[in-house]
Amino acid sequence: MRVLLIGATGHIGAAVRRRLAVDHEVVAVSRSSEPAVDIADPRSVAALFAAVGVVDAVVTTVGSVPFKPFAELDRAGFLAGLGHKAVGQIDVVVQGVPHVADGGSFTVTTGVVGREQIRTGAAAAAANGALEYFVPAAAVELPRGIRINAVSPTVLTEATSYHRSFPGFVPVPADTVAEAYAKSVDGAQTGRIFIVD
Amino acid sequence: MRVLLIGATGHIGAAVRRRLAVDHEVVAVSRSSEPAVDIADPRSVAALFAAVGVVDAVVTTVGSVPFKPFAELDRAGFLAGLGHKAVGQIDVVVQGVPHVADGGSFTVTTGVVGREQIRTGAAAAAANGALEYFVPAAAVELPRGIRINAVSPTVLTEATSYHRSFPGFVPVPADTVAEAYAKSVDGAQTGRIFIVD
Repeated sequence: MRVLLIGATGHIGAAVRRRLAVDHEVVAVSRSSEPAVDIADPRSVAALFAAVGVVDAVVTTVGSVPFKPFAELDRAGFLAGLGHKAVGQIDVVVQGVPHVADGGSFTVTTGVVGREQIRTGAAAAAANGALEYFVPAAAVELPRGIRINAVSPTVLTEATSYHRSFPGFVPVPADTVAEAYAKSVDGAQTGRIFIVD
Repeated sequence: MRVLLIGATGHIGAAVRRRLAVDHEVVAVSRSSEPAVDIADPRSVAALFAAVGVVDAVVTTVGSVPFKPFAELDRAGFLAGLGHKAVGQIDVVVQGVPHVADGGSFTVTTGVVGREQIRTGAAAAAANGALEYFVPAAAVELPRGIRINAVSPTVLTEATSYHRSFPGFVPVPADTVAEAYAKSVDGAQTGRIFIVD
């Protein structure tokens, strides 16, 4: 298969790139690659698909959200998280459908915040909730047998700076998280949230 | 108790107003009331709280989302639904905290689309998911014993124009849905999604 991986430079993206490259041709892009993509900009997403052409799978491992105490979050903070992490990845799906082969797939990335609660996590929870309800909703409407799933990892072993914000959350190596993306890309499931805890 | 009800004119809002008025003083507002409020405008939300003063509970039964086939939804459609129904209600909570008495509560409104899938429901699902993950996340951070819950009703008996889009969904009268708001306002629960099916 030919797989477009958006977000190839983070801990998860790098691990997914290695894992999917075992079986597939991976077109790995980021904000600084050639071609580059910024999921905050719909024209950038359109230009990426025009440059890359038809693929069998699209994987997104991108999206930023503000982590702040609830009392410091405002409307702009919630909109920023929902706009970037949720709608940014959703727009990759919306614009990507014509560029994905019959029976292909989309895989988006959510995260543990939302199904678990942490202080400073309200905006991240909203963004993850938007994505985790979007995925089964889109699954029933995608054409030509195209599938869609989400991967929802807990905190990563490699992301040591976050560990203190997640007390009692047992970290998982990025290489383990990457297996869930292989399950989504190579498997038969659709409309699923693959939790990696 | 003194309850601020935002969205007093819809099927649900009117029923909630009747139900809560049995036990409470209800300050019922809408876009055309005096004072009025438009949850799309943060200054309007701020002006409402300044005008109303301290309340024991805030209930929102407002929020619009586009219902369109997936192929007709674009980034703007998802942003519109998330911005109005999700962030509009979230901003009422964010701005409302200083105006809610110790031990008071917020109750927001989501809906069946998301936990169930319908064609044309992808943007509504995203908005409901954002809210249904926000509620437990906010619950762990709200100060002074303030609680927050969501009510997630299925299709309403009174909303006959929607019935054809929800095949096999057994409609529920708005007066039954209104009981879930009483449970949230008068009960002890927090961080809960009260499903009314």
